[in-house]
This record gives sequence, structure tokens and C-alpha cells, in this order.
Amino acid sequence: MVRLGANRYGKAEVRVVHVGHGQAAGGGDAVWDWNVSTSLSGDLDATHLTGDNAHVLPTDTQKNTVYALARKLGGIEPEAFALELAARYTGTQPAITRARVAIEEFAWTPVSGTGRSFARSGEYTRLVTVHDDRDLGRTVVGGIGDLTLLNTTGSQFWGFPRDEYTTLEDAYDRMLATVVSARWRFRSADADTDWAEAFSTARSALIDAFATTDSYSLQQTLYAMGAAVLAAVPELCEVRLALPNKHHFIVDLSPFGLDNPNEVYYAADRPYGLIEGTVLADESPDAGIAWS
Amino acid sequence: MVRLGANRYGKAEVRVVHVGHGQAAGGGDAVWDWNVSTSLSGDLDATHLTGDNAHVLPTDTQKNTVYALARKLGGIEPEAFALELAARYTGTQPAITRARVAIEEFAWTPVSGTGRSFARSGEYTRLVTVHDDRDLGRTVVGGIGDLTLLNTTGSQFWGFPRDEYTTLEDAYDRMLATVVSARWRFRSADADTDWAEAFSTARSALIDAFATTDSYSLQQTLYAMGAAVLAAVPELCEVRLALPNKHHFIVDLSPFGLDNPNEVYYAADRPYGLIEGTVLADESPDAGIAWS
Amino acid sequence: MVRLGANRYGKAEVRVVHVGHGQAAGGGDAVWDWNVSTSLSGDLDATHLTGDNAHVLPTDTQKNTVYALARKLGGIEPEAFALELAARYTGTQPAITRARVAIEEFAWTPVSGTGRSFARSGEYTRLVTVHDDRDLGRTVVGGIGDLTLLNTTGSQFWGFPRDEYTTLEDAYDRMLATVVSARWRFRSADADTDWAEAFSTARSALIDAFATTDSYSLQQTLYAMGAAVLAAVPELCEVRLALPNKHHFIVDLSPFGLDNPNEVYYAADRPYGLIEGTVLADESPDAGIAWS
Amino acid sequence: MVRLGANRYGKAEVRVVHVGHGQAAGGGDAVWDWNVSTSLSGDLDATHLTGDNAHVLPTDTQKNTVYALARKLGGIEPEAFALELAARYTGTQPAITRARVAIEEFAWTPVSGTGRSFARSGEYTRLVTVHDDRDLGRTVVGGIGDLTLLNTTGSQFWGFPRDEYTTLEDAYDRMLATVVSARWRFRSADADTDWAEAFSTARSALIDAFATTDSYSLQQTLYAMGAAVLAAVPELCEVRLALPNKHHFIVDLSPFGLDNPNEVYYAADRPYGLIEGTVLADESPDAGIAWS
Repeated sequence: MVRLGANRYGKAEVRVVHVGHGQAAGGGDAVWDWNVSTSLSGDLDATHLTGDNAHVLPTDTQKNTVYALARKLGGIEPEAFALELAARYTGTQPAITRARVAIEEFAWTPVSGTGRSFARSGEYTRLVTVHDDRDLGRTVVGGIGDLTLLNTTGSQFWGFPRDEYTTLEDAYDRMLATVVSARWRFRSADADTDWAEAFSTARSALIDAFATTDSYSLQQTLYAMGAAVLAAVPELCEVRLALPNKHHFIVDLSPFGLDNPNEVYYAADRPYGLIEGTVLADESPDAGIAWS
Repeated sequence: MVRLGANRYGKAEVRVVHVGHGQAAGGGDAVWDWNVSTSLSGDLDATHLTGDNAHVLPTDTQKNTVYALARKLGGIEPEAFALELAARYTGTQPAITRARVAIEEFAWTPVSGTGRSFARSGEYTRLVTVHDDRDLGRTVVGGIGDLTLLNTTGSQFWGFPRDEYTTLEDAYDRMLATVVSARWRFRSADADTDWAEAFSTARSALIDAFATTDSYSLQQTLYAMGAAVLAAVPELCEVRLALPNKHHFIVDLSPFGLDNPNEVYYAADRPYGLIEGTVLADESPDAGIAWS
Repeated sequence: MVRLGANRYGKAEVRVVHVGHGQAAGGGDAVWDWNVSTSLSGDLDATHLTGDNAHVLPTDTQKNTVYALARKLGGIEPEAFALELAARYTGTQPAITRARVAIEEFAWTPVSGTGRSFARSGEYTRLVTVHDDRDLGRTVVGGIGDLTLLNTTGSQFWGFPRDEYTTLEDAYDRMLATVVSARWRFRSADADTDWAEAFSTARSALIDAFATTDSYSLQQTLYAMGAAVLAAVPELCEVRLALPNKHHFIVDLSPFGLDNPNEVYYAADRPYGLIEGTVLADESPDAGIAWS
Repeated sequence: MVRLGANRYGKAEVRVVHVGHGQAAGGGDAVWDWNVSTSLSGDLDATHLTGDNAHVLPTDTQKNTVYALARKLGGIEPEAFALELAARYTGTQPAITRARVAIEEFAWTPVSGTGRSFARSGEYTRLVTVHDDRDLGRTVVGGIGDLTLLNTTGSQFWGFPRDEYTTLEDAYDRMLATVVSARWRFRSADADTDWAEAFSTARSALIDAFATTDSYSLQQTLYAMGAAVLAAVPELCEVRLALPNKHHFIVDLSPFGLDNPNEVYYAADRPYGLIEGTVLADESPDAGIAWS
């Protein structure tokens, strides 16, 4: 009557902080601060149907594996770590045919001159998702989250259709703010990729495109940002963006006898616009399991 | 060189509270407390590529539409509201070929004898996602979130594979706790469906299955929960569940000369297990766009 | 040049879940789900000034003590537990002259007929803060948080002063909603107090007063709620309330040719009103350290 | 039988973003992003006891006043703004004898070369609390929050007392991490104070003291941080710090045949140590209402 469909299981949010003693440029310590989540899938019908766990590598073991590999692999980029971790599961567990590893990396800024002290940068979070499928191969998706950007000017919105419920007025100079959530797909999982350089370049491209686009809609800005990332990092073939329009409404001060020449804004919480879109390189390999 | 891929846009988290004066059983007021998000897609290349917004019904208008329809449609179930709201966009905006409407409903408990007073129940959130595509038709997904369940006994976990990183011991009597996130797909968007009854029955089935399953793994419990929902609500054909294993670890009190016969637990935050799975009725219509 | 002022230290948010097997009415299991924080103060200058920790009972030990006492004391009310825990520190650590214990209790609803299964109630959180000072004695403060209440009618706000920045219109029938945060001080730390009954009665009194007060201001409702608690629970002498005015604004539907007879509201997030006030019994013992 | 005690009311979390066009060094725009909360107290018995609102300046008016003053006062430091805003209430509302204004300021980093674009820095939040009492005068408290700091080495903890519940081992080289919450009291509300310089200097002093203190306890670090702020900013007379000990536990990798020379840590969420303390200048004026 009923049957089991797609399924996976794993350990979510393993918080691992790795110190590389003397490994920073200049001889100080380096810090990698990660939140690692793993999911495994494969021949797992038995545990669902009868509670037979012979194929279920415990999520506790998955947690231990994160820590052990952090020690063994040393100071490497999160994309490289995720590939190694995922490969371990598909390579050693016969029942597991696919592994998914997701990492959030939190950035820390060295306190100069100390070699041992750091302040956490809250400016953004680096994101990685890797899939390793025994039959379908490996995919790497990088990304960035929690990056909040704002333009004080250079944004418009007009020329839109109006229906019986439209009250919005044309805007020829509005504040534009968003919290960037972007994911980019690498053309290959090639171990020689300079993951750090790709991230850094993509991040700069996003910020530059947001800052320099004279925007008629957040959709236009989104497309410009995605295109800029693809132009800047040839190893990438697809960018997916989700951009909330964090509304900053100009406050009407006229009841108080005051003008407001785009100076005082109310930063609203909810609702917010939400613009989601994909930009693809013309010759993109098939995404396969990259986004699953 | 690059091209626009899949995209959509809309207004997220429109918070609308609707009062039905005298509409509760017994003659008191009724309250519907919703968080509504809408997304539209269709012929939207121009705004991305050139900033031409002729096809972009403003997200502000989408917000207004939520409020206007709340007034016009009166006290109806969230699934019915979502269908009406989605149909309005595909029915009146030529460029919009698909609409997605998602609703979270927060439950309120009447204070008895008052007719006007309510206490918010934090026990769960009711979830709805509707798609309306001009070509592909309409789909309805219901669900529940934030439902936290716990069994003090009747859960085991053993017989799992061990590798070099396995330290977990067999558990023959463990505490089991989870926060249920479940989504169920209706076979059709038939307006005659008793949406309230379907939700209520599905919720009860989830709780009963969790409570009565003597569990050898959370996967087994997940499957039992999904199967119970399908058995209880024949209008449904698919259930997708995400069950975090909210670990409650027995505290080792032996250093203090104390035993601990499953009495004192440490409720851990992170990491947590995460079990995701789908249960399907044997004869399920194709999901189409229901989960997009 | 500088000197150490007031200080304290401890372990915050020890999450302990205690199961009382067969201790519920009807013979099923009982569950106490607590978040316990302890703070110690006393002769602690040395650790601040020189790093000499001879007086610093580790916060790790404080955590262990919570677990050990949970086992030893069994199923007791959180006020009673807090008193025992605080007394242990002032009674056994010569350098510690004062202990503060704060407990949040999360409520669980038994799934009827199971004896072992529970659903977490999110309707409110029970709060306890106890102080034990070797010289100044013991104080007990109970309370409730996260209790969200709403009246669909019976609330007004008018007759207020207007200045050059006032644009608010008189309201003769508005929705009123708040999230109750209330703390009540017991006249004594008498171990014979029926803590459970006091909590239950105070909670009912708060809800009843909110529901039945025809309100001209949230301040008036606050005072009525505090007075009702004191009238209902003679063991109490003081109630402190913080009531956010969770604004629900009537939506202006007139641009759409629709009326809105108090039916459709926008639930705003920020800003919100915040009303804070204290209600005291005429003959209240001095608060002493109760609120520190 | 019961009476009204201390009370106050106001508008919380007014989100105002102010743009200073061309006011940044170099001629670009400047941005001030604030979360402003105001509370008023005075002759407010009537509204509590009878619902007579003749003395209750609406919280909505308080919100409007924030926006109007943001326009009128232009680009000034948050301490200066808070003083002006508080003075307005005590100066114009006869029934209001005391005003409290609290501001959170979120920092934005200019995108270089643009003059219009900014990325939000999540590294810390600047805090201000001002009181203005018609009889007792004015007080200014500044501060910082959300500043997360970490030392990879140079921290110890040993020599502590042991009781029957102590299992902690001596630590001679542990990771130390905290999220700084610090508040500093100014000796006076003198309008000539260089508020920006005071904040910047205090922040640097906190970070430097954390980084350079070879610590035997977090208490010792706290005291060093407070003393450093007072030494660096002579306008200050008191610093109150709350430092959670964000535990990073070394992972025991020996079951896997691996050593762990302080390289791989588990970052725990709860419980956490919490160290609270005050450092005072020897000649401090009385705090009065500064901390209320």
C-alpha cells in the first residue's frame, strides 16, 4: 500500500574549530571554524521497514569522523575537506552509495601582532556543499551567506504593471539593501582547484556588481551579480542567488513640517521582497546531483 | 556567454491576522493568524536583462492582495486561501505563468467563556504550499512544523556497523525526542477537500505513530509516521518527513557514587542526527511541481 | 587607581531533563525539562586580581552538581530544587557567601494513554529565581514568560496628550496583544509553600485579568493583571510585569474599495510598545536581594 | 490592598537608518544604522489605575520623535543623539520626569571607491544608554556587544577547589573564547565629550587586554579588560562586563589512534560559563540612575 521513497540520514551541525599552529602568514596561528553536516544515502530500506540497522553507520560515528579527519587533513580549504570526507563514506561503506557534506565556515580576523588572538568577523559565512555518488561522480558547490549590502542611491523601480491592488508609487531613487545568499557550482571537482581564490574572487565580484549596477530592479542586480561571478571565476558554470529586498522606507516627515531628502529611513523587518534566480554559463555541464 | 535560468520573485512573510466576529462555535470570535509568502514566475527575462519591469507585478501589490483577499474570502482554511490567491496571479497577469503560495498558520486557544480572548498555542505550526501553473495545473502540499515529541522509553539502537571511528555503544532503552517537520501531498487540489479534517487527522496520526512505535531506529519511526498519515488520510499520496534526533544523553553520575536508572538526561543542542525520508502511497500521481 | 566592584560567576543554561518513572497521576512517567543557571559570589578578589583560583569552584562542578541533585532530589518543583541547589553552595563553600539559581521550565503535555509519550507545549515558560545569602537569607521569585495573549475587542486608547510629533488617532476598539513576562516575589522561602499551586493560580489570574479587563491602556491592563495575581495568591507580595504591545494594525483596504470592520490586521514586528510596571501588596516585606 | 510601584513605558526597537550625503571622509555618503528604544516615567498613576491617559505621550509619538530628530540633528554620535532625545521628553512633557534612551548601532563598512555602497560589519554592536531625570540629572553609559574573541593559547585554569562533584582536570593550555558584552559609564554627560574617540579607544583596549593577558581565569581577563578601558579613556569611571566562557573542548582522538596537540576542538553551545564583574576607577562619582 505504501512504500519508502527518497531518504538520507546523517549528523547535522558538527562544530569543529581547528588550529594550525604557526601556519598563518607571518608565523602566527591559523583558525578554521566550521559547522559540518553530513548525510548518507544508499541501501537503507531495512532500517526503515524493520529496524535492522546493519547498514546504518551511526551519526555518532559520522561526528567522530569529522574530528578525526580534521586532525589528519590539517589546514585545508573546506571544499577539499568536504570532498575527502564524502569520499570516505562512499569508499568504505558498501551500503552507502552517496554522501552529502555541507560546511559553513565562519571567518576570524587575526588581532595583529599577537599570533594567537582573533576577533570573529560577522561580515559573511562561506558555504560549501559536496556530493559524492559512487555511480554519478562528485559535485562541488561553493557559496556565501549572511553578506548584507546596501546602496544609498542608484536604485530605481518603475514601469511595473498596476492592477486594482497596486498602490506603490514609482521610485526613481530608492535605498537598496539585501542579504546575499549565493551558491556557485564548479564545473568539476578537480582537486587542483584553488578553492580559496575562487571564493575570494567570487565574493569580490558579488560586492562590486551590487555596488556598481545602476539598478532598475533587484532582479537586474541579481543577474548582474551572477554574471559577474561567472565572468570572474572561469571554474564556475552556474550561480544561484536568493536576494531578500530588505526594505528601507523613506519616512514621511511632512506632518512635522520637515522635508526628507533621502536622509531618514525606516528599516522594515517583514514582509520583504524575495528575488530568486539562476545565472548559467552558456556551456554548462549538467548539474546532476549538485543541488540535491 | 551567460544566460538566465530558473527564477521567481515575490513577497515573503506577510503577517495577516483575520478575525471572524462571532464565527467560532459557541458564537465567539475566531482568529486566523497567518504568515503568507508568494512567488511568481513566468516571462521575466526583461527585468533581469534590461531592468524593464513591464511584467513585474510589484511585491508590494502582492502584499496588498493578501490583505484584500483575506477580507473578501473571510474565514477559510489556509489551503483554500492559498489556492484562491495563487489562481488570481495566473488568472490576471498574462506574463505570470506560475504562482507559489506558502502559508504558516499559528494556532490560538480560546480563553473559555470570553468570546474575545486567546492564548497562542506554541505546540505546532500548520504549513501549506500551493502551486498554480497555467499549463501544469495545481498542487497542494500541507504539513506541520515545530511539533516536539518525546518518548521516555521504547526506543533502541543497536546492530549498526562499526568502523575505526565508531565509539557509540548499543542502546537498548534510550530517550527519543524530535521536532517533527512533515509535509504531505494531496492527490488533487479538489476544492471539496475537507482541509481542516485532513490536517487534524494527519497530526493525530503522526503523534500516535511516534508514541506507539517501539523503535529500533528513528528511521523506523519516521516510516511508521509517514505510513500512518497515508493510512489515515486517503486524500494524501506522499509524506516527506525531516526528523532531527534531539539527543538526550544519559548523564554518567558514577563519579559521584550515584546510579542513573534512565532518570537524568542532558539535552544537547548540537550536533544532532537528522533523518529525512519520504513515504509514498503505491498509486501516487506524479508529483509534478508540487515540491518546487 | 582601579578596583574590583560587584561580581559573580557561574554556569549558565544547564539543560537537564528528569524522568520520574511511574510518577505521573495515572501511573505514567513524569518529565521535568529545565534550563538551570547558577551564579556564585563572595570572596573572589584573588582570581580577578592575580588569577589565584583557590576560591573558584569550577563552573564545570556547578554543572555536575545540577545533575547530581536532580538525581538525589527526584521529582520536585523548580522553586524547591533551586533552594536546595543554592543552599548547597553557601553551605559547603566557605568563600561563597551568596548563590543565585535561575530555572526555566518547559512544559510537556502527556499523550494520553501512553504513559511514555509527550508533546512539548509552547504556550509558556515557567520561571524561577532563588537567592541564598549567608547573611541576608533566602528569597524566591517565580514567574512566567512567553505567554502570548490577544483580545479581539475591548481595548481602547484615547485622551492622550498631543505634541508636534503626534499623528496617532484615537482608538475606541483596537486589537490588543502581548507576550506576558511576569515575575512574582514570595513573601518567604518557606519550604511548605505549594509552589505548583501558586504558579498555576498566578497563571490563571494573569490570563483572566487580561481577558476580562476592558482596557483604556495597556498600563491599565498591566495593573489589573498584577493586582489579580496578588489577590489570588496570598503568598506573594510583589509582581513585576513587562508587557510588549504587539501591535496589530488595521489594514486600510479603502484603496481597494473594501471596508474593514476590524477583520484584517497586519501583525507588526518592530517597533513595539513596551510597558513595564510593578504591583505591590500594601504590606510587603523588603525585597532585599530578591531582584539582584 | 495593592499599590503601583516603579513603572515606565515607551517604544522599543525603532529602526532608523540615516544617510549623510557626502558626509564621509573623502566625500562619499555616511550611514548611521540604529535601533532606538525609549522609556518614560513620571506621574503615570492615573493610566494604570483608571485608564486616564492624559499624561501618556503615545509610544507612537515617541517613534515619530526619533525619526524627526534624526532629520533635525543630522549625523551625530549616538550618545549625543540619545541625550537630545531624552532631554526633549523631560523638557516638554510636564508629567514625564525621567527618560531613558537606549541605542544599538550597527556598523557598515564602505565599499571603497563607490561613495554609495556599504557592507554590514557583523564584528560588534555599539551600545548607548542615556538617562535624563529632571531632578537627578543626566547619565551616559556606552558599550559594546557581540564582539567575539578567541585566544588559541595563553590561557590556564587550575588551583581551584574540588568537592565531591568535581571532575574537571587542571588546564595549563586551553583555548579561551568569549562574546564581549561591556558597558562603560562616563563621569559626566558633558556635550564636549568625543564620544566616537571614547568608543574606539575602549574597543581597542578591550581587544588588546584580551589578547595580551596570559590568563589564569576568565575572571582575571575580565578585570584586565575593565582596567584597560579605564586606563585608556579617562572620561570613564566604571566598566561592567559580562563574559560568557564559550567552551571549546579539546576532542579526545585517542580512540582513533590519533594525538591532538591542541589542534581540534569542539565548540559547545550550552551550558557555558558566565563571568560578570565590575571595574571601578578609584574616584568614581556615584552611579545614581545610570544603570537603571
